[in-house]
Amino acid sequence: MNDLSLLQKKRLKYKPTLPKLLIDLEKVQFRKIDSKSPLKDLENLFPNTFSLPAYELVSGQGTHKPLKIGVVFSGGTAAGGHNVICAIFDTGAKVIGFLNGPSGIVENQSREIKDVSLYRNQGGFDLIGTGRTKIETEEQFAASLKTVTEHKLDGLVIIGGDDSNTNAALLAEYFLKAGCTTKVVGIPKTIDGDLRTDEIEISFGFDSACKTYAELIGNIERDALSTKKYYHFIKLMGRSASNIVLECALATRPNLALISEEKRGLDGIIEEIVNLVIERNAAGKDYGVILIPEGLIEFVPELNEMAKELNLEKDPHGNVQVSKIQTEKMIIDLVEKELAKKNFKGKFNVQGHFFGYEGRSCMPTNFDATYCYALGTLAALCIREELTGVICSIQNLSKDPESWTLKAVPIIQLMHIETRLGKQKPVIQKALVDVNGTSFIYFAAQRKRWQIEDQYCYPGPIQYFGDPDLCDLAPQIVTDIQKPHASTSDSS
Amino acid sequence: MNDLSLLQKKRLKYKPTLPKLLIDLEKVQFRKIDSKSPLKDLENLFPNTFSLPAYELVSGQGTHKPLKIGVVFSGGTAAGGHNVICAIFDTGAKVIGFLNGPSGIVENQSREIKDVSLYRNQGGFDLIGTGRTKIETEEQFAASLKTVTEHKLDGLVIIGGDDSNTNAALLAEYFLKAGCTTKVVGIPKTIDGDLRTDEIEISFGFDSACKTYAELIGNIERDALSTKKYYHFIKLMGRSASNIVLECALATRPNLALISEEKRGLDGIIEEIVNLVIERNAAGKDYGVILIPEGLIEFVPELNEMAKELNLEKDPHGNVQVSKIQTEKMIIDLVEKELAKKNFKGKFNVQGHFFGYEGRSCMPTNFDATYCYALGTLAALCIREELTGVICSIQNLSKDPESWTLKAVPIIQLMHIETRLGKQKPVIQKALVDVNGTSFIYFAAQRKRWQIEDQYCYPGPIQYFGDPDLCDLAPQIVTDIQKPHASTSDSS
Repeated sequence: MNDLSLLQKKRLKYKPTLPKLLIDLEKVQFRKIDSKSPLKDLENLFPNTFSLPAYELVSGQGTHKPLKIGVVFSGGTAAGGHNVICAIFDTGAKVIGFLNGPSGIVENQSREIKDVSLYRNQGGFDLIGTGRTKIETEEQFAASLKTVTEHKLDGLVIIGGDDSNTNAALLAEYFLKAGCTTKVVGIPKTIDGDLRTDEIEISFGFDSACKTYAELIGNIERDALSTKKYYHFIKLMGRSASNIVLECALATRPNLALISEEKRGLDGIIEEIVNLVIERNAAGKDYGVILIPEGLIEFVPELNEMAKELNLEKDPHGNVQVSKIQTEKMIIDLVEKELAKKNFKGKFNVQGHFFGYEGRSCMPTNFDATYCYALGTLAALCIREELTGVICSIQNLSKDPESWTLKAVPIIQLMHIETRLGKQKPVIQKALVDVNGTSFIYFAAQRKRWQIEDQYCYPGPIQYFGDPDLCDLAPQIVTDIQKPHASTSDSS
Repeated sequence: MNDLSLLQKKRLKYKPTLPKLLIDLEKVQFRKIDSKSPLKDLENLFPNTFSLPAYELVSGQGTHKPLKIGVVFSGGTAAGGHNVICAIFDTGAKVIGFLNGPSGIVENQSREIKDVSLYRNQGGFDLIGTGRTKIETEEQFAASLKTVTEHKLDGLVIIGGDDSNTNAALLAEYFLKAGCTTKVVGIPKTIDGDLRTDEIEISFGFDSACKTYAELIGNIERDALSTKKYYHFIKLMGRSASNIVLECALATRPNLALISEEKRGLDGIIEEIVNLVIERNAAGKDYGVILIPEGLIEFVPELNEMAKELNLEKDPHGNVQVSKIQTEKMIIDLVEKELAKKNFKGKFNVQGHFFGYEGRSCMPTNFDATYCYALGTLAALCIREELTGVICSIQNLSKDPESWTLKAVPIIQLMHIETRLGKQKPVIQKALVDVNGTSFIYFAAQRKRWQIEDQYCYPGPIQYFGDPDLCDLAPQIVTDIQKPHASTSDSS
């Protein structure tokens, strides 16, 4: 076992505040609720699950039985995932972890999770690993069926994003059709914040990622203001959608934050940055901070063309790896050229940054730790009450956890049909920034003021409170390792 | 005024624990102490300050007089600088801030600091800005003399690194020679941790920067372990020395941390990484985390040659900007080529990172906040007691602040002579990692174990404790800005 850092040890002791209904699991049951019908077109694809209703958790009399539950992480990491598993474990269920993502189900690679004590409120997915395999072919579905049947699983909890939850719905349908009693439950995970529907207020991991990025952006803003030397172009992870950029912009008030969903076109974007640079120069300011969503390239055909001309690395599926395209560098080049054309005499010194991996496996914030623990408990309850093809939906998240509402919503209610390569595919549409939504409108009303005035906000790492043991230590090279911060005495 | 984030507001209220002697400034005085003599060769350059002794602050009877003190930041930002100024302000002195670095002295650009209430325990140098001008020519020295004379300054506090403290010594000498009574006091600042001598245990800012980088490195380690997909090559700021890499390695236990001072040569470095990749592959691990000091290039002539062949951006002094050289990319390329030669069949997917600016202007850790407040108070006392050409030296930093010892050491005691462009120049040698020192030896004893076993440690942002108001909020786009985290109601 690795030695844990001081903070890891402290976080192990953190107790999420639970929604009231989750305090005594024997006294809750599900009640059917009205909900929208799935799209009619989905009926062919989901004959066995098409008519299943949505449920809300309410007080009542719960059943009591020993459960065996499989869990799997799917896709990129997001802070809080371990708490989903811890919560399922804490219900008393026997927990089987499928290893390194959905391939662990297909290939029946698993291990029983007998101890979660070192994973409470910890970041990452390393308890069982994760992976990006999609369960798509008949062979893969059949193999998955074989696996859950062999394990005699009461349920399978799939912790993933839009594609993974679509997969969960397909597996639920497949299992039902085959007469298999294993229930399938989805958990909304992704730092990108693009798994948002009427039912899903936010996916877990988004909060922790944004708070990490906002810490760094704020630090860089303060550096820019102090040294007055650089324009910092900061690209943020988040796939297609600009949710992360919007959230971070609200937290840090940069001089400019590009929101792909505004669809301004390349000329519009370059013009906006060039004007910003010229206006700030006139105000005596040759520095600034600009946020760029990694998905911008998908909304700007010209950038996409330019990227194709560069010989870009592709992932195993043949897709260009969006996060590797140096969009920020391409934009910087274009801005430089345009400034030269306009005979700009000021300074335009730039630094490029990309933040992504830093925010995916951080320790979950209290919000994500709590949210995930509640999601995991809810998933176990869904399985106990024999619901399948549902996603765990917790609402009123901006209120105290005690007043959160807990629902189980058929995943197909979230679905649309898309034609991909001539084939009809059920998909959960990625939630982009809604340019008519309250958050964007608020942002749009503020941003002009942020451009020239420096209205930077420095959220910081929320780092400096609480336990003096954690905060007051001198650097290790000063203490010359007389007393290392993380003891190694009990290591393997 | 900008709206402050919640953490900024909290940090404003943080009260550093003071060394006992700094609690009642009327009851302290300086006592001469034995100290080493400056190099004989420095006598010509410093005839007026050569024989000045070192002092220690002790209980006694202090003088009491109204003081007027100039302050200036010099060079890159480092967390805690504002506390130096706050502390001087709190002694009751009239404080003149020179703007945007030493050029503010030469050009007499200044403003009186009448309010520090929004800068206590805050990051950055934005209260008065910073800059990199060196005071070198006779005209600059004369202009500086004119400025301090016009302001009738009792003292000038220079907050900077090795070069800036050398400058402080030269100014002290110049002022004395001219019969000017303005005292000059240096404060050891730099995140690089390379201003370390017998007298200076560490410069301020190092701790905050390393803790920020270690947070990010730990997060990335956890992501690597969870997804098992990438080798992350993380370059860290720090100029020539590898102090930051060593400190961060001790805190995070990466698979490999290059320490330039080991002088392994390019072949040795590439071989080490290639062997690591091959050995880890044999253990089923095609991922890892490798730390690279930005100064590596200065120790590896071949890398330097390669960099020169690239057409690299130069700073206004004609120097290649070390932090812009993508050392990590050059190394990755060489490793890839060598792996191909060896017919390596595993995966070697890489992500490059560079952390620098993120850690310079972060909020100071409790350690840096406290250290800086003590340094600032000590600087004001030096001026009150008419010491000049000294640097503030606080020792026993790994102990409680109450038992820190406070000294004023002639800067020339830290100096060496270097021949630069045929001219003899007094310099404070940059403190590199001492490969015979306790910290390095401890690191060297551990690192083999970190290579194949993943002994990652995740220090985290120390982010999740204390005030629930700070920690428990949902993302802003969830609350739809009903209640933005940082209120904007009272903004300008």
